[in-house]
Amino acid sequence: MAMWLEPDPSQLRDPHGYSLKWHFYPPDVLPLWVADMDFPIAEPIAEAVRERLGQPVGYPPASGDRALLERIVEHQAGHGLLGLNPENLLLTSSVVPGIYASVLALTSPGDEVITQVPVYPPFLNALEEHHRLARFSPLEPTPQGWAIDFDHLERLVTPRTRLLLLCNPQNPTGRVFRREELEALAEFALRHRLWVMSDELWADLVFEGRHIPIASLDREIAMRTVTLSGPCKTYNTAGLGGGVAISHNRQLLSALARVLKGLGGHPNVLAMAAWRAALERAQGWLEEVRSYLRGNRDYLTAFLHSRLPQVGYLPPEGTYLAWLDFRALLGEGAHAAMLERARLGLSDGRAFGGYAGWLRLNFATGRPLLKEALERMERLVAALR
Amino acid sequence: MAMWLEPDPSQLRDPHGYSLKWHFYPPDVLPLWVADMDFPIAEPIAEAVRERLGQPVGYPPASGDRALLERIVEHQAGHGLLGLNPENLLLTSSVVPGIYASVLALTSPGDEVITQVPVYPPFLNALEEHHRLARFSPLEPTPQGWAIDFDHLERLVTPRTRLLLLCNPQNPTGRVFRREELEALAEFALRHRLWVMSDELWADLVFEGRHIPIASLDREIAMRTVTLSGPCKTYNTAGLGGGVAISHNRQLLSALARVLKGLGGHPNVLAMAAWRAALERAQGWLEEVRSYLRGNRDYLTAFLHSRLPQVGYLPPEGTYLAWLDFRALLGEGAHAAMLERARLGLSDGRAFGGYAGWLRLNFATGRPLLKEALERMERLVAALR
Repeated sequence: MAMWLEPDPSQLRDPHGYSLKWHFYPPDVLPLWVADMDFPIAEPIAEAVRERLGQPVGYPPASGDRALLERIVEHQAGHGLLGLNPENLLLTSSVVPGIYASVLALTSPGDEVITQVPVYPPFLNALEEHHRLARFSPLEPTPQGWAIDFDHLERLVTPRTRLLLLCNPQNPTGRVFRREELEALAEFALRHRLWVMSDELWADLVFEGRHIPIASLDREIAMRTVTLSGPCKTYNTAGLGGGVAISHNRQLLSALARVLKGLGGHPNVLAMAAWRAALERAQGWLEEVRSYLRGNRDYLTAFLHSRLPQVGYLPPEGTYLAWLDFRALLGEGAHAAMLERARLGLSDGRAFGGYAGWLRLNFATGRPLLKEALERMERLVAALR
Repeated sequence: MAMWLEPDPSQLRDPHGYSLKWHFYPPDVLPLWVADMDFPIAEPIAEAVRERLGQPVGYPPASGDRALLERIVEHQAGHGLLGLNPENLLLTSSVVPGIYASVLALTSPGDEVITQVPVYPPFLNALEEHHRLARFSPLEPTPQGWAIDFDHLERLVTPRTRLLLLCNPQNPTGRVFRREELEALAEFALRHRLWVMSDELWADLVFEGRHIPIASLDREIAMRTVTLSGPCKTYNTAGLGGGVAISHNRQLLSALARVLKGLGGHPNVLAMAAWRAALERAQGWLEEVRSYLRGNRDYLTAFLHSRLPQVGYLPPEGTYLAWLDFRALLGEGAHAAMLERARLGLSDGRAFGGYAGWLRLNFATGRPLLKEALERMERLVAALR
């Protein structure tokens, strides 16, 4: 095991207050919430930024560095999303602006938008802040993992439904949707003439199966889809930013670009250099990280099954997130109880579509810290008896 | 003279296509357009970014690094804008998002907005794209420099007028407004109950007189003003980004924040480190640059007066921009003629409020290149005879 994957917690809580994750809660709280990893970035990324500083850092080309755009096209092709060129890409400052711009560009106030829940809170915030009506398609726990209820989904559609928001691999459940599920979703979207926004930010952090971009299924769904990607989750560079909206339908990208114009900023030259280096030179780092995360996932699964069987949990197939049902143990106040009595800072399920009593745990940390966190949970649960 | 202020043009046109300024036009065109300087950034800025890479680059605190916010407060106090604290600052990814967010937050579609012209094109783009009606207050050339016609300004006001857009120091004229002018503008804004957005991005590149933030005049105008600032012009870091909207009236900032939420991205951690280092450690660099730019301005003035007296020109008091009236020599096609026949890439005055025949020249380059550019102009003009 590489030492760098098990960092000293005293170093994670940097003295400058730089890390939101490590400074949000009091120092005795173990933070397992916002989606940063507790691992240093790949050295080739830091090296590329240092090199880039030796070149001019004035205004870059408006569409971004050509070499980066070409690497993104290749990277998507590696996931099976073929037939793209740099003109099918719109760089954004991070992935959230791609979510908001999709909602604003593809719908109007009062329109209805379908999203699976639980889901990454900015999906819901974008809808609520801009007066779009969220229609929830709840993921259901099954022996095969978190599943879409297609009958329920069908009943959500009305003449005002315009857009389907997909998160795949799914935050917070870690579900990686199968080809047949994506085909059924695509057929559904086409039949109802919905636009599709597919947030595929976690595509490179998959442990089982294979990530399939929904837009890769066929030309017809590709022309109705905006796919979002970016380096921040995979390479742990959220503070550097960088995101991309991708579509075979350039009219959709133009509509997103109009929403972002003037508000979204232009691409950051160091973020572009970092992203390019990530795609070109950080694959070794990524394999080590992914392997370590899989080990953490397996450790977590074994711990929960053997020592906290009352916690509802389905092992994630991707991401570094675990979606935990504490309702039976802690009721709707699970988040506060975990914080106050176990000194664990997790994400409150309420923000993911009203899942009070559920918690999202970020397991991208050293195993000793994960073990410590789980033991704190176990002690809290033992004290309840 | 420091060597670094007179760089080799072959190095400015970097081989990677990184610089928009140097790659937009064909290689035989001297580019004197977009507002980047042809000087390398201050070494303390590069050093700070390299140091920052050794710390976690995950999500930063949402409002930005506290130490940076404190430096910005101090920097503004140095310009006489007192009584601020970090809660009076809203970091943005660059200055343009502050312009757009001000327009969107402080006005509604159909509202009228007054701006001096000629002016930085994003002012006009923000109004046009969002269906606000621009009302032009033309700056008039006088023996004392570019001046506001206050009688004309008064006649622009209607019951739908909501906002005054100010650019000070002024892009493209280089005018640095005097205290009495700013007092008259403030009185005007207060009397008509207008909001004020004051883009003060160029505040640290002033050669004569002193930059005065309009919000520093008194409490009443401060409560109606959003001041925009940022490191990009002063420290030549446009590609790193970073901007700030400042107001004593936190309700105004909240309104801007609502517009930017989800679309504007979060602060880039390397940009914050660079900006902080600029304010803390790049003052020596800045003094050298300012002194060199003043020399360029004087060289340009002497050249135009002696060898191109037909060009309309008032020496700028700040910025590194010269606003040139070529109408008498080249008519409305001045920009194309300069590009095609003198191989000079300048900014077309049309974008600054319909000033066909006017050109903006960026003189932040080595003096040999500036001399070469002016001699190309002189040859073009000689060939007209």
